[in-house]
Amino acid sequence: MTRTGRRPGNADTRAAILAAARDQFAACGYRGATIRGIATQADVDPALVHHYFGTKRELFAETLQLPFDPTRIVAVAREGDPSEVGKRIARVLLGFWSTEAVRATMQSLLRSALTDEESLEAYRGFMFDTVVLPLVAAVAPDRVPLRASLLASQIIGLSFVRYVAEVEPLATAEVETVVAAIGPTLQRYLVGDLADA
Amino acid sequence: MTRTGRRPGNADTRAAILAAARDQFAACGYRGATIRGIATQADVDPALVHHYFGTKRELFAETLQLPFDPTRIVAVAREGDPSEVGKRIARVLLGFWSTEAVRATMQSLLRSALTDEESLEAYRGFMFDTVVLPLVAAVAPDRVPLRASLLASQIIGLSFVRYVAEVEPLATAEVETVVAAIGPTLQRYLVGDLADA
Repeated sequence: MTRTGRRPGNADTRAAILAAARDQFAACGYRGATIRGIATQADVDPALVHHYFGTKRELFAETLQLPFDPTRIVAVAREGDPSEVGKRIARVLLGFWSTEAVRATMQSLLRSALTDEESLEAYRGFMFDTVVLPLVAAVAPDRVPLRASLLASQIIGLSFVRYVAEVEPLATAEVETVVAAIGPTLQRYLVGDLADA
Repeated sequence: MTRTGRRPGNADTRAAILAAARDQFAACGYRGATIRGIATQADVDPALVHHYFGTKRELFAETLQLPFDPTRIVAVAREGDPSEVGKRIARVLLGFWSTEAVRATMQSLLRSALTDEESLEAYRGFMFDTVVLPLVAAVAPDRVPLRASLLASQIIGLSFVRYVAEVEPLATAEVETVVAAIGPTLQRYLVGDLADA
């Protein structure tokens, strides 16, 4: 295909950028993909990518079609009683996941992460760089990367058991039941003593 | 195809039973499938199924081609210091998972559980009935089903983060580092105070 010059900002441009972004995130991962590379593939000026989608983070979130802003959770960690941060995180996650639309998205993300190495790489990079690491860094006394991967392990496992495998009683337990059960685990991973770990 | 009577116990019989078992477990789930139904589909006497594969549990384990006996973990929970049961379970799991063959099997099981409703149903039924529930029942003071689903959430999340997503430092951390980090969580889910959960 012959390049006919940069596209003007028309109604199709947004869709072309989004398609190019999906390709580039899949090919290079979240960390490797660049706004410049996405602009080149979409045949537009990089400024137009920023104009339509803001930052790389916002563009990636758009490609995921997340029906919530995952970075809100960082603010939740910072605000309020530090001794309750684990329960607060559990509560806000369960709130995010409480609608059918979000559960469907989570399920399809988990599926593509498991079956497609490239989706996994892109999604892992995005979640860690923009959500998990900032969240842990906001409250942890030390060992941010270890705490972040431990936190992710409990959160991913909870979402799998509650929403994908639908194991009872966790599948239909009240939010506050799950918060009381999981909150102390998240609390320890975030700020607790990891002993000899 | 005309039925020509029950197959004699020949070299192909074992393979026919195994194929029928895979079909029946997929169609009916682990709990729903019966030795009789499997025997009927394989066109053999039920006694021959028992002869080749023992119990339904052993037959299902055979269809999964697990390179270890998952029920060993129940014995591990029962034996030894009750205050160390969480660490003991973590240690034996990490031991199971330490070979490439087991990791490949776990990964493919997680994948098929996420992408195939029938595999998920069969595998969930098997794991809970023969491993998780007996393990928890052997040590828990109360609330066995809740504790079992919590335990599963941390174990599945750990295996996902360490072996599928390969998030560092958890992906390459020493076994005893992971045991120290995860053990107290498993301990609390198995025998600890779940407070208001």
